[in-house]
Amino acid sequence: MKFSVKRSELVNKLNIVSRAISGKVMIPILTGIKISVTDSDLTLIGSNSEISIKTVLSNTPEKQENLVIAEKGEIVANANFFTNIIKRLSGDRVDITTEGSQIKIVAGKSEFMVSGQSADNYPQLPRIDDLDSISLSSKQLIDIIGETIRSVSIQDSRPLLTGIHFIIDNEQLKAVSTDSHRLSQRITQISSANSADVVVPGRTLTELRALLEGIDQLNLQFDQSQLLVDLGQTTFYSRLLEGQYPDTDRLIPSESTTGFVIDAAQLASSLDRVSLVAHQSGNLVAKFTIKQGKLTISTAQSEVGKVSEELSIDHFIGQDLEISFNPDFVRDALSSIAEEQLNFSFTTNLRPFVIRPASFSDNNKVQLITPVRTF
Amino acid sequence: MKFSVKRSELVNKLNIVSRAISGKVMIPILTGIKISVTDSDLTLIGSNSEISIKTVLSNTPEKQENLVIAEKGEIVANANFFTNIIKRLSGDRVDITTEGSQIKIVAGKSEFMVSGQSADNYPQLPRIDDLDSISLSSKQLIDIIGETIRSVSIQDSRPLLTGIHFIIDNEQLKAVSTDSHRLSQRITQISSANSADVVVPGRTLTELRALLEGIDQLNLQFDQSQLLVDLGQTTFYSRLLEGQYPDTDRLIPSESTTGFVIDAAQLASSLDRVSLVAHQSGNLVAKFTIKQGKLTISTAQSEVGKVSEELSIDHFIGQDLEISFNPDFVRDALSSIAEEQLNFSFTTNLRPFVIRPASFSDNNKVQLITPVRTF
Repeated sequence: MKFSVKRSELVNKLNIVSRAISGKVMIPILTGIKISVTDSDLTLIGSNSEISIKTVLSNTPEKQENLVIAEKGEIVANANFFTNIIKRLSGDRVDITTEGSQIKIVAGKSEFMVSGQSADNYPQLPRIDDLDSISLSSKQLIDIIGETIRSVSIQDSRPLLTGIHFIIDNEQLKAVSTDSHRLSQRITQISSANSADVVVPGRTLTELRALLEGIDQLNLQFDQSQLLVDLGQTTFYSRLLEGQYPDTDRLIPSESTTGFVIDAAQLASSLDRVSLVAHQSGNLVAKFTIKQGKLTISTAQSEVGKVSEELSIDHFIGQDLEISFNPDFVRDALSSIAEEQLNFSFTTNLRPFVIRPASFSDNNKVQLITPVRTF
Repeated sequence: MKFSVKRSELVNKLNIVSRAISGKVMIPILTGIKISVTDSDLTLIGSNSEISIKTVLSNTPEKQENLVIAEKGEIVANANFFTNIIKRLSGDRVDITTEGSQIKIVAGKSEFMVSGQSADNYPQLPRIDDLDSISLSSKQLIDIIGETIRSVSIQDSRPLLTGIHFIIDNEQLKAVSTDSHRLSQRITQISSANSADVVVPGRTLTELRALLEGIDQLNLQFDQSQLLVDLGQTTFYSRLLEGQYPDTDRLIPSESTTGFVIDAAQLASSLDRVSLVAHQSGNLVAKFTIKQGKLTISTAQSEVGKVSEELSIDHFIGQDLEISFNPDFVRDALSSIAEEQLNFSFTTNLRPFVIRPASFSDNNKVQLITPVRTF
């Protein structure tokens, strides 16, 4: 293998595949990046066995200076070490040659010779049966992930809840996550007539989101156990979580007895202060008191202290209410929805309450939070 | 105690005293900040028993809006918790009142009531006998610390080496540090006729440096066991390290048999690459090869690989040489000196070599590095 490449292009590609690489893999060769060169392409692959990322740099006539291939071949290079070397080299170009299992890296007056591993032992990429694909804009997927990722469970006791449930049907994509204390739902209109029902690991979507910058349109393909995302030069693979995700539609209340509209920035600032007292005590509870159309947020923690703030609300309807909740969950919901005006609706202080954008009355953007029982 | 204060002023003052506060103190009350109010001043004190910082906000007629005192008193507030509350409040002003051992904090529509502790139990600040003081510009002290702090030992086996040795005499301040593998020395001309010979803990100087921004001139005072730095509104106290610092003058070679001048940026960039291979192997060794007026830097590590780079040098004098060293020490020395052109001078490959600014031939700015024996 022997090629010369524009260093900035190689650094970009290494940054992409490095997102799949974890220090904590059971298969030693997966600490490496597979580098393959054909007559026309340089392909890099990184994987942690759950997520795999492949990216291709082509030897196109328009941009011949990007990649000049002298000899085909493949090798596996230590991911961090190789990437750090390429990043710290001086000069625009780097020449890479294999000599047996050694990799020679030359740029400017620097010459490295580092150990590689045979690419024969590198696992194959997953195969996805050629199903119909679902086309989506990158912006749509960024919004979907942003609005649902925070409610993904971080506990392994119910593995399915560590993922986001995607239900694609009737030109609609519904994404739902819940850690059983709160729930996020986002419904997006899409133009695909295909359907699917899968659970994608939350970590997968966090890594995928990081690859979407500069991408316009993408294609999703699913089979029973794998997701493939086609981003053009880059292809992203992830295993899916298997099993039956709980029915969440029945959890979203269809009625409310108390409601108001509130400025999100005002509430976020209050929550940040109230959280200080809750976190200082280790007891993550705050309380909304709604009385005669006025809203107070407060917490009182013996030993530590107490805080109380009055908030301005609009469009108050319904009955007085006292309800306790985890302030971090409401703070997260505000970050997830990212709208200036929010509608809160409550039934009783034992039932989940719902946060929606003030301009939405449907269930397209929902953050649902279960209250904390304090008695 | 009852006062009203401009919030941004209080945040500034809290940031200053917080630098002395550590989560790992043996004396529980030192996790707090002592707040004292007299008829004319608000004083804050933070301490970790090694370092103490006192800062004063005065009720001056010109800036009356900064501080309005209604009632004298003092209390100790939990440092992190109180500081975070003040930082996250909305509005320009904050009103602080004590009610027994409780502290009431009111700003805008927020009202906090948090637990404090009696100031009676807070330790007294160290007393420094009224010795002659040494005046220094803030810039001089920043340079002295920056050029010597990296050679301070981080190991407790020889406690004196965890400090910087200050020798003040004859209108000269000599600062020296060594971890026994390398040595940094900086001599500064000062206008004080007083003399002193003390060892200041490295951590003290790191914290002190952080307080020097915006300060023009400062005064140092020492007694046998304490340092006091007068920064105007802020006073910084530190204990000194006791004992006889080793004689370091005899360690700096007065002759050399090989020498050259090199561009610091070029060498730093090469060292960063060579260090990658050394760090990957865990064996922190690199080698200068000086042959017929040419300099090569290299390292070869079995298992990991090797790297070699040719460097441009000027003003070469003397004999060929091969010398092995810890590349991190040379990299640190480059950061410490922070000059564009450096002079390296060597005797044999067993004796320490010296790095100075190319424009200096005296010992006012010295970085000395002991070679690594590789045979």
